[in-house]
Amino acid sequence: MTELSFHMAQQVLDSQPFSALVGARITEFGDGAAVLEVDVREELTQQNGFLHGGVLSYAADNALTFAAGTTLGAAVLTGGFSIQYVRPAGGRTLIARAAVVHTGRRQAVVRCDLYTADDERAERLCAVAQGTVLSALPT
Amino acid sequence: MTELSFHMAQQVLDSQPFSALVGARITEFGDGAAVLEVDVREELTQQNGFLHGGVLSYAADNALTFAAGTTLGAAVLTGGFSIQYVRPAGGRTLIARAAVVHTGRRQAVVRCDLYTADDERAERLCAVAQGTVLSALPT
Amino acid sequence: MTELSFHMAQQVLDSQPFSALVGARITEFGDGAAVLEVDVREELTQQNGFLHGGVLSYAADNALTFAAGTTLGAAVLTGGFSIQYVRPAGGRTLIARAAVVHTGRRQAVVRCDLYTADDERAERLCAVAQGTVLSALPT
Amino acid sequence: MTELSFHMAQQVLDSQPFSALVGARITEFGDGAAVLEVDVREELTQQNGFLHGGVLSYAADNALTFAAGTTLGAAVLTGGFSIQYVRPAGGRTLIARAAVVHTGRRQAVVRCDLYTADDERAERLCAVAQGTVLSALPT
Repeated sequence: MTELSFHMAQQVLDSQPFSALVGARITEFGDGAAVLEVDVREELTQQNGFLHGGVLSYAADNALTFAAGTTLGAAVLTGGFSIQYVRPAGGRTLIARAAVVHTGRRQAVVRCDLYTADDERAERLCAVAQGTVLSALPT
Repeated sequence: MTELSFHMAQQVLDSQPFSALVGARITEFGDGAAVLEVDVREELTQQNGFLHGGVLSYAADNALTFAAGTTLGAAVLTGGFSIQYVRPAGGRTLIARAAVVHTGRRQAVVRCDLYTADDERAERLCAVAQGTVLSALPT
Repeated sequence: MTELSFHMAQQVLDSQPFSALVGARITEFGDGAAVLEVDVREELTQQNGFLHGGVLSYAADNALTFAAGTTLGAAVLTGGFSIQYVRPAGGRTLIARAAVVHTGRRQAVVRCDLYTADDERAERLCAVAQGTVLSALPT
Repeated sequence: MTELSFHMAQQVLDSQPFSALVGARITEFGDGAAVLEVDVREELTQQNGFLHGGVLSYAADNALTFAAGTTLGAAVLTGGFSIQYVRPAGGRTLIARAAVVHTGRRQAVVRCDLYTADDERAERLCAVAQGTVLSALPT
């Protein structure tokens, strides 16, 4: 296993064309946790002007995977996750905070809270997720 | 409840800026089912050249919601869903096929199978999802 | 909506024959949270001597529902949930702690952490769950 | 990997004390699929006389695991699953039908449909589930 630094995590994110298309950045990484942020813009919305659920599920998927990368290393595969939407997501910035709740050698179970922050950085919960990430390395 | 036609479903999809960014189209809609397709292109991939999990989760989210729209009408809110990835998603086209397994007046439970098709339209399963969609109308 | 007291919650639990069969008790109830406990006994195990996953999923289901009952009232229906097992569940007591993460009038989204406690009440996480509970009343 | 016969699967079920407490039996096993049945009785109900959700989640958990056992062998660990309830479960018999949707060497993704059958064996869907089962053997 290679321990990933914040710098390396940013490089992985930068090498994901879809993350560039969405406009995601990593703002925290390490010790079983990762934070992914996306600035809200019109291109990311659904028909009512809120962030599309698919943007939230993208952010959950990626934040879960990066959080697991802090314990499993760079070679990981996301097995799957569950997401519940709790409120339409408006605001200025989407913030996905993921934290590993348990890790073994082969897999990690991770949770993610998704918030939207307004101009004053006041946050409102908009979705919660939990999922499983597998090590891609032989065990 | 307004019964949605295929034409109206396309208009809803066209009014979602994020679906335009991803490049999604509806190819089937009606009778408790919906099919959403996305052409694979480099912008939608992760660091290993496969479709990003976030594209699959977007497609699952949206296909589930449209399938529920065939029974609940246009005013729906996706409550949440679970997705399991079964294989890296390459190929030429992502096809998300969703079907309602049960609908009441207030909510529908929906499943979705996600395939990638190659140049000969041979399909391989890449993920499965199931979720709940709520009617946004008072009951 | 009827606000449920701890005493009324115990009465609801006592009126569930399956909870009596499993041997569950409520130890905390109120303010968006509920704790359900089950003493480990041989009848609740699987073939390797650990608690059966079905006991954990029962405890998650019921703790999620009771936690939602603190915000939605007694007339609730569990819509569904997702559970991830993180470790074989041994020990002396199963403790399912559920807390509402968001509630509206129609539904609540709830999370649950499941621990096993040994003779010294030292706890180990064995599973995590999250789910949705619906109000059974017209809205 | 040991290929499991129907007889061996029954022996595994018989060695689960909790399955005996619930009263479960295997009625089909093989080729990526398993069917688990439970006769409805008062001890398995909740406060309104329907099967407790915990009985359905037990049946989903166990049916998913047995179905995966047909492809992964006897040494399996259920990673987790998601269940959506679609209708109160009455009737005479609970029938959980699980089928593997994809299997690798390390894990299988499995779906389960849960029905209740009345005296004439007419079936009604009461819940759907999907989950992941891991091989417990080194890969």
